Amino acid sequence: MEFDLIKMIRERSAARRADVSCGIGDDAALLLPPAGHELAVSIDTLVECVHFLPNTKPVDLGWKALAVNLSDLAAMGAQPAWAVLSLTLPHPDSEFVQGFVEGFLQLADRHGLALVGGDTTQGPLTISVTVHGFVPKGQGLLRSGAQVGDQLFVTGPLGDAAAALQCLDEKTPAAGTMRSKLERPQPRVEAGLLLRGLAHAVIDISDGLLADLSHICDASGVGARLHGSALPCSEALVSRFGLAQAREFALAGGDAYELCFAAAPEHAEAVAAAMHKAGCQAIHIGEVVAGSGIRVEDGQGGELVPAMRSWEHFRA
Amino acid sequence: MEFDLIKMIRERSAARRADVSCGIGDDAALLLPPAGHELAVSIDTLVECVHFLPNTKPVDLGWKALAVNLSDLAAMGAQPAWAVLSLTLPHPDSEFVQGFVEGFLQLADRHGLALVGGDTTQGPLTISVTVHGFVPKGQGLLRSGAQVGDQLFVTGPLGDAAAALQCLDEKTPAAGTMRSKLERPQPRVEAGLLLRGLAHAVIDISDGLLADLSHICDASGVGARLHGSALPCSEALVSRFGLAQAREFALAGGDAYELCFAAAPEHAEAVAAAMHKAGCQAIHIGEVVAGSGIRVEDGQGGELVPAMRSWEHFRA
Repeated sequence: MEFDLIKMIRERSAARRADVSCGIGDDAALLLPPAGHELAVSIDTLVECVHFLPNTKPVDLGWKALAVNLSDLAAMGAQPAWAVLSLTLPHPDSEFVQGFVEGFLQLADRHGLALVGGDTTQGPLTISVTVHGFVPKGQGLLRSGAQVGDQLFVTGPLGDAAAALQCLDEKTPAAGTMRSKLERPQPRVEAGLLLRGLAHAVIDISDGLLADLSHICDASGVGARLHGSALPCSEALVSRFGLAQAREFALAGGDAYELCFAAAPEHAEAVAAAMHKAGCQAIHIGEVVAGSGIRVEDGQGGELVPAMRSWEHFRA
Repeated sequence: MEFDLIKMIRERSAARRADVSCGIGDDAALLLPPAGHELAVSIDTLVECVHFLPNTKPVDLGWKALAVNLSDLAAMGAQPAWAVLSLTLPHPDSEFVQGFVEGFLQLADRHGLALVGGDTTQGPLTISVTVHGFVPKGQGLLRSGAQVGDQLFVTGPLGDAAAALQCLDEKTPAAGTMRSKLERPQPRVEAGLLLRGLAHAVIDISDGLLADLSHICDASGVGARLHGSALPCSEALVSRFGLAQAREFALAGGDAYELCFAAAPEHAEAVAAAMHKAGCQAIHIGEVVAGSGIRVEDGQGGELVPAMRSWEHFRA
C-alpha cells in the first residue's frame, strides 16, 4: 500500500524543473544546485494535536506543511527550489493523501518549487518537510546582524492565527480572515528576497514575536524596544478580543509566519517600497537598543508585559 | 525547553565542515555544494512501535536514524555531507536527547557528515532525518539501469535484523550478531562509492530483498532469477531458525541495509575487489533476465516462495 501512495504522490507532483536530474522514485533525489549560490536547507515538522487540530482539512494541511518551511527560506532571503516530504499516517488513506498533496502543490506551484522525494510510513499523523532554496553567496539574511539604532519591522498583522486557534479549540466562532491566517499562511518569500542587502537581521515569526525577536537580540548581542501602540492587530482580532488582548496575541501568539527584521533608519523608504512590491507591509514596531532583552512600551511611560506565555512546541 | 534542547544538540553537534556557512541556530542552514556534482537528497522517518521497539536505547536510535538515511545515499553512490534532524518527543527529555545525539554523531563522524540544522517538537516519538551527499554529475547509481544478463549481488548476509526484531518482539533471545544488525546497521557508503561506473543499478535493502529488488526490475523493465541456495544467511540466523526459515528472512525481512546491485558478468572480479576494499562482500545471488517478476529457484527445478510477507511500513 505504501508504494501506491508514493505512486499517487509521484503522479501528482509538481512540474519538472531543469535542475532535477532524478526526482521521486529512486533512493535519493539528484539535484543540480546553481553555481555561485549557497544552498539554504530547513526542516519543520507538524504533529496532529500539537501544531494542528484533528479536523484540519487535508488540503489546508498540505498547504501549511509547506508554508511553514517556505517561511524559513523567506527569513534567509532564499529562492525556493526543492522539497522532500515525509508523511506519517495512521493508515493508508488515499483520500487524505490526495487532498494533502493538492494543497502542498498549490503553494509549491506559486513558488516554482518541485517536490522531489519523500517517505510515507505508518504512525501518528505527522508531517516533516525539508525545503531547499538558493541565495547568492554571502547574501543570506542571518539573525545575527542587528545593530543598535536599527528600526524593527514586521511584514503584516500579528496574532490572528493564534487567536483563531484558540477559538477553534474552544469551539467559538472566528472571523474568516483570522482563520485563513491559521489555515493558509502566506510565506513572505518575495519579501525575503527583496530584503537582501537591505535588512541587517531577519527571522520569521513562528513561535511569537517576543520569542522570535529574542533570537535576533541574542544572536546580535542587542536589546529591543517595542512600541505597544504600533503592534499591528487586524480589525477582526481587535473587534473579537478587544485591544489589550489583541496585543497579547500579537506579542506572544505563534503561527504568524510574518517576517520580523531590523534595518537601518536611512533605508526606511527603500524598505517600505520593497515590502509594498512584495505585497505586504513594512510596519515599524520599534528599535534595536544597546543591552539585552525586549521592553514593550505602553506609551504612558510604563511597560506592557503579556500575561500569555510564548508559544512553545513543548507545552508541558 | 525546546530552545535548551536545540542548544544541547548544537553544542554537541559534529565538527565543522568548510562547506557549512551557517549551521544550527538560524532559520535555515547555508551550505556550499561543490561544483561539478549533483546533490543527492533523501528523507527517512522512524516511528516508535513501527520502526523500532519502545525500549530501544537512545544511543542506538540516534545511530540507526542516520544509518537508514546514509544507506539511501550509499545506494546512489553519493558521498555523505550534511544532515538535518527533526526530533519529535513526548516530553522534553534531555537524557534521551543526549544519548540520541551521541549515537547519531558517532556514525556522522565516521562519514565526515555534519549535522547542520533541525527541529524539536512535542508529540509521539518520531525521528525524521534528511541527508545530503554529492555525486559527480551523471554518475549517480539509479535503479533503472539493470540489463538482461547482469549478475545480481548483495553486500552481506540478509535476514538477521528482521529475525532479531521478531525475537525481541516475542521476548526470546537473539544472538548478539543478529541484534547488532538490527540496532547498529552499517550503511554501505564506501561500497556505493566504489560501485560508481561498475554497477548498472543499485538499491538498498530496507523493505526486504524481494520488495527492493522488484523496484530495480520495475524501473529497469527486466526480471530476476535468484538462486535460493546462494542467499546469504548468517550462521547465527541458521542455527536459531533453521535454513528454510533463515532463507525466508533473507528474502522478505526488512531492515537489512545491505546494497543489492546489478553488474555485467565481465566486471565480476572488479566488483569482488571493490567490495573487499569497502569491507563488505560481493555475494552473487542471481541474474537479471528478460521479462518481469522475480523467480527464486530452489536448486531442484522448483521455486521457493516465501510464506512471509515483505516488510511494508503500512502493516495494516
